[in-house]
Amino acid sequence: MEYISVIGAGGWGTALAIHLRNRGCTVRLWGWHQDEVDEISANRENVSFLPGIKIPPEVLVLADPAQALVGAELVVQAVPTQFMRSTLKRFRLLYPADLPMISCSKGIENHTLLRGTEIIQDVLGPIPVGALSGPSHCEEVARGRPTVVAVSTTDPALSKEVQAVFNGNAFRVYTNPDLIGVELGGAVKNVIAISAGICDGLGYGDNSKAALVTRGLTEIVRLGVAIGAEAQTFYGLAGVGDLYTTCVSQFGRNRAVGERIGRGERLDEIRSSMSQVAEGIDTTRSVRELARRRSVELPICEEIYKVLFHHKSPARAVQDLMAREPGPEHREGG
Amino acid sequence: MEYISVIGAGGWGTALAIHLRNRGCTVRLWGWHQDEVDEISANRENVSFLPGIKIPPEVLVLADPAQALVGAELVVQAVPTQFMRSTLKRFRLLYPADLPMISCSKGIENHTLLRGTEIIQDVLGPIPVGALSGPSHCEEVARGRPTVVAVSTTDPALSKEVQAVFNGNAFRVYTNPDLIGVELGGAVKNVIAISAGICDGLGYGDNSKAALVTRGLTEIVRLGVAIGAEAQTFYGLAGVGDLYTTCVSQFGRNRAVGERIGRGERLDEIRSSMSQVAEGIDTTRSVRELARRRSVELPICEEIYKVLFHHKSPARAVQDLMAREPGPEHREGG
Repeated sequence: MEYISVIGAGGWGTALAIHLRNRGCTVRLWGWHQDEVDEISANRENVSFLPGIKIPPEVLVLADPAQALVGAELVVQAVPTQFMRSTLKRFRLLYPADLPMISCSKGIENHTLLRGTEIIQDVLGPIPVGALSGPSHCEEVARGRPTVVAVSTTDPALSKEVQAVFNGNAFRVYTNPDLIGVELGGAVKNVIAISAGICDGLGYGDNSKAALVTRGLTEIVRLGVAIGAEAQTFYGLAGVGDLYTTCVSQFGRNRAVGERIGRGERLDEIRSSMSQVAEGIDTTRSVRELARRRSVELPICEEIYKVLFHHKSPARAVQDLMAREPGPEHREGG
Repeated sequence: MEYISVIGAGGWGTALAIHLRNRGCTVRLWGWHQDEVDEISANRENVSFLPGIKIPPEVLVLADPAQALVGAELVVQAVPTQFMRSTLKRFRLLYPADLPMISCSKGIENHTLLRGTEIIQDVLGPIPVGALSGPSHCEEVARGRPTVVAVSTTDPALSKEVQAVFNGNAFRVYTNPDLIGVELGGAVKNVIAISAGICDGLGYGDNSKAALVTRGLTEIVRLGVAIGAEAQTFYGLAGVGDLYTTCVSQFGRNRAVGERIGRGERLDEIRSSMSQVAEGIDTTRSVRELARRRSVELPICEEIYKVLFHHKSPARAVQDLMAREPGPEHREGG
């Protein structure tokens, strides 16, 4: 695999396009708006989403779906989950049935409750699919800082091919057969990251945040196992690792949303002031609905839902979480 | 249990004494040096280890072992692991055989390779013992910031009693039957924290650090399971939770040691400039020896050992860790 098309010219898509070009691939990067694409192409920089980082001149930046797929042996999609369906529809009529697509989004679609690879197959049919996830802030990947991720696909041979394409230049790729886990870990951790941000906004300190992260991991595992994922996956890169970066980093958008909520801002104000999408907000709705359908109890996700969508006071939400009667740390069923 | 003696007037011992007093207990706090004890007692503040935090006047601060144990129904020991044996020897002749002692140290003794509760029983005989661990920076506990920890003892009834004593005032205590896991998690995470600090010192970013934390957790689990702990414990407060705080926090001494090493300082310089003990340094030796005896492979701990004690370049150590050929994320045996 040498010819790669990246769908989505946000921060993550751009960073992956740069990385793949630096790995020696021929890369086409597709963006929705012609004017944005022209700007990126002219500046060799994604000023809105990845400022200060040069895009190699060999990366073609395009807005035409047919042009974007020319020669592609692998497609990497990096569009926010709630925009995936509308984006992929633009590729439907021209998408080859045997062209694999790797999802790099971290969310669950509202209403349908589908993961990235499920949305892809829902729109494009039963093409080969996979997911790439793990602790990978795009700014750091674009700058070539050491990063380690997990890849999972519907076919072990494809996983190894994808691994070979991405692995190198301080970017390490492990394979993992658990596609559900790899996708779900990245999605649900964005909800937990909002709770960690709320802790920051309330000025609660690292002990509280660590407790939330730990109990949050338990919720990710509980939901994941109910849906058919392996617990082991969540204890690895796509769970613990990604949760760590998202909850700590200054780059973490979901953590930042939580922090602003903890400081007393309203969700609609925050949303309207952000240029980038914090996947955790919409994913909170999906995760809550998924948990209800499976009768899984997720106290942190439930409180975040109430804070985001029912004006519950964030301080009260954290207090309610902390006030739960402690018993044994591990119960049957997690 | 109302009468509690705390052995060790460092930051952690002092913070726990304050918390227990605020819970309504009658608390005696023992420190090794008469002059230090007098200073703390006069100032009602532990200026060296917990500056800026008032110690309630009801906490008696003492240097005499017999005085320190008067009326005690529970003893909490919070001395750095490598000093536990010499400290406990001062209590040996007067220690009641039925007086329980909870270890709050996070290390493994050099040469003997014993955990805290094992050192206690080695010195004091088969008294009831337990351990308290989890994400709990002493500064935050002393200030009453929300904190959640795990407690494990040799006896479920004792665990519940200890839980009842400590639980309250924004300090939550879960019980966990896995004593080995609760103690080992806290010890080995200090070694991983040094590696996370090295990442910081080298300016590597959050992706790298998250990868090290994730692979570090795998090492903790691998060693722990070989020794008889439950993997589940390490995915909870005494593993993931504690690892998180230690690797993130500005208060983290072991992380700070790593950061200075990453910046090029020498271990002996760092050690001589620190007033507090970073348990991870000595524990690195113990963990490595423990792993060798059990034939467990711990690549991160091994590299940290080489950096700390054999002048290996920290940049080279991290590069060597990152250069390992990636395969499947989870292998048999972790």
